[in-house]
Amino acid sequence: MVQVAVLGYGTVGSGVVEVIEKNKEKINLRSEAELNVKYILDLRDFPGDPYEDKVVHDINLILEDEEVKIVCETMGGIEPAFTFSKRALELGKSVCTSNKELVAAHGPELLEIAKANKCNYLFEASVGGGIPIIRPMNYSLTAEKIESITGILNGTTNYILTKMEREGADFSEVLKEAQEKGYAERNPEADVEGHDACRKIAILSSLMTGKYVKYQDIYTEGITKISAEDFRYAKELQTSIKLLGMSKDTKDGYEAMVAPFMISDDHPLHAVNGVFNAIFVHGNMLGDSMFYGRGAGKLPTASAVVSDVVDCARHLGKTIICIWDKEELSLKDYRDSSKEFFLRVKKEGWEKAKELFEIQQVVEIIDGEVGIVTKEMTERAFEEKAAKLPEMITRIRMEK
Amino acid sequence: MVQVAVLGYGTVGSGVVEVIEKNKEKINLRSEAELNVKYILDLRDFPGDPYEDKVVHDINLILEDEEVKIVCETMGGIEPAFTFSKRALELGKSVCTSNKELVAAHGPELLEIAKANKCNYLFEASVGGGIPIIRPMNYSLTAEKIESITGILNGTTNYILTKMEREGADFSEVLKEAQEKGYAERNPEADVEGHDACRKIAILSSLMTGKYVKYQDIYTEGITKISAEDFRYAKELQTSIKLLGMSKDTKDGYEAMVAPFMISDDHPLHAVNGVFNAIFVHGNMLGDSMFYGRGAGKLPTASAVVSDVVDCARHLGKTIICIWDKEELSLKDYRDSSKEFFLRVKKEGWEKAKELFEIQQVVEIIDGEVGIVTKEMTERAFEEKAAKLPEMITRIRMEK
Repeated sequence: MVQVAVLGYGTVGSGVVEVIEKNKEKINLRSEAELNVKYILDLRDFPGDPYEDKVVHDINLILEDEEVKIVCETMGGIEPAFTFSKRALELGKSVCTSNKELVAAHGPELLEIAKANKCNYLFEASVGGGIPIIRPMNYSLTAEKIESITGILNGTTNYILTKMEREGADFSEVLKEAQEKGYAERNPEADVEGHDACRKIAILSSLMTGKYVKYQDIYTEGITKISAEDFRYAKELQTSIKLLGMSKDTKDGYEAMVAPFMISDDHPLHAVNGVFNAIFVHGNMLGDSMFYGRGAGKLPTASAVVSDVVDCARHLGKTIICIWDKEELSLKDYRDSSKEFFLRVKKEGWEKAKELFEIQQVVEIIDGEVGIVTKEMTERAFEEKAAKLPEMITRIRMEK
Repeated sequence: MVQVAVLGYGTVGSGVVEVIEKNKEKINLRSEAELNVKYILDLRDFPGDPYEDKVVHDINLILEDEEVKIVCETMGGIEPAFTFSKRALELGKSVCTSNKELVAAHGPELLEIAKANKCNYLFEASVGGGIPIIRPMNYSLTAEKIESITGILNGTTNYILTKMEREGADFSEVLKEAQEKGYAERNPEADVEGHDACRKIAILSSLMTGKYVKYQDIYTEGITKISAEDFRYAKELQTSIKLLGMSKDTKDGYEAMVAPFMISDDHPLHAVNGVFNAIFVHGNMLGDSMFYGRGAGKLPTASAVVSDVVDCARHLGKTIICIWDKEELSLKDYRDSSKEFFLRVKKEGWEKAKELFEIQQVVEIIDGEVGIVTKEMTERAFEEKAAKLPEMITRIRMEK
């Protein structure tokens, strides 16, 4: 019997208990052990809950119980999750987490502690919810030099953008509806400003490079300025607008960014709609591959946490290899990266725009303005030219 | 130093040597060992090849060399691959293979021998080429009860169907062109008749159930009868025609089948075009997920074989869990499975068709015939009714 403790009995934590219970037979078979949830740590009580007798309020009860070999940290946030995880690992208890904030902020440190104590710190659920991506990167793409990762990493924003596209609605309208339906938080900033996607692409970039990519270094732009008009242009250009997390190994350094992009309709990410997420990986031998599924939600996320629990149970007393060094990777200044840009310019700025930009396509579908697709240029060059063009209404990056 | 032997220096085998050489640094880091290709077994010599001095003609040289810990079987076919793999495993040498024929025919037996000799029989490259799917099923989806798998599992047929769709061309025309370009074999039967996809869905079905699904038991239909006219109807119905391998856990038993299907344009598999493959997996907790990438080709397939080599190197002397029992799973008679059907009927059969079938949609786009979509019905009921309708031109199954 392998005893498990769940820290935080919220959406994901209660999902973990449910998954372990519902798929018990399959899970025990694959773990080659019998898993049992012995404790659930939460500040609250849950009278009437089928597992109410497992609920405890003191972390020390769990840490001091030598029977507990695996801890699921589904609390979210940095503290007290960080302290609890560290203490568990120091005691040789493996930790499985869905907490992307903590993984992005302290991943390498926690991995090091796990290694020193012959246990594991696993975080499959921290990126892409239920989509297997961390384990495929660590266990499957081992013969590859991964050259780029492009992901739709946040379900809330993808839901909003898909709805804007399909209904021709504006951002604020759709956000309100999403909040009413529970698809967006009352305080939606972490999602709509791209912070959540930024944590996730930071984690993926770290695994891609084996070094520590700090999320604070990644240029991040959200979707709050995207309008119904932008989607009219997107359609005309046979693209869709998606919030992408990107990471690329280029000749002159690594670049990473989170921003809304127009993505063409022959790109596999184009068809990823609603709350679904997908991670597009390009390897030097493999070429293109993509991992698709539910990027959030109670049971898909819990399923990923429990897959980590199974992996820990299979490797009790042994650390599974995860190459993520403490050494920080310095990213290229995003201004030195090159792209094509789409911009909307008021009619009166059109002559000036023609002088400033090398233009590859012009779209005229809205009165009083012109849509322009530039040739590839650096972000820096774009910013300099855009500063001379007060008639510019908006700009969106493009990805082929 | 971990010594590796490659059996068969054809497309995949030479790819394996190339991948190990090109990505040496990353691969050794992830293997926590230095890998070296010591032997290449082939009947031929390769004068001028950079690795010509590694080429040997006698399997015993490899089997008797105790330094060789890992063998890549990239010969294809049942014999002598089966005998060589068995002998290697009996000597405690792990075997990594791209040989779907052998895995589908003797997988459980070879896994058992590997287990008895504390080594591994791994076959990531046998399904989906470079797409990580075997390892995600065995290591990642461990908290799931997988309820269905639907795959585009053969690159050649998907290339042909995509080209037929885009160019309005007929099967034989496109096949000829594909053969000239080397995308299809001179003897294309294994691909176009669905035999290759059948081996692959048999392997996936076995991993899904943990039992032995024999490929001989899977009803298999190829794409040779699909015509340019069928694609005109497909387009009208907002679908595409894809050769699908399917496996489902239903209330009254497991069902598996390979056949061309009309698949609607909101299904993620709809956008999988050309030589790409994808495997769509539905789990009871996870919901829908999909794994996409290059299903064939020298380097992608070799990359998957080498990822197995890395896994073997990480687990020398230890067998990695793979639940695939020798016990045969008896599949449901395919005639008892239910679907919607599309059929084309000559105009003179239209009145009779209306009497025979419950019809949900009618399409009239070609003179002298009528296209019909039936409501869901069993294969058996369909066959019985179709036998009474000599005016039926063709029928294609539908998948939503």
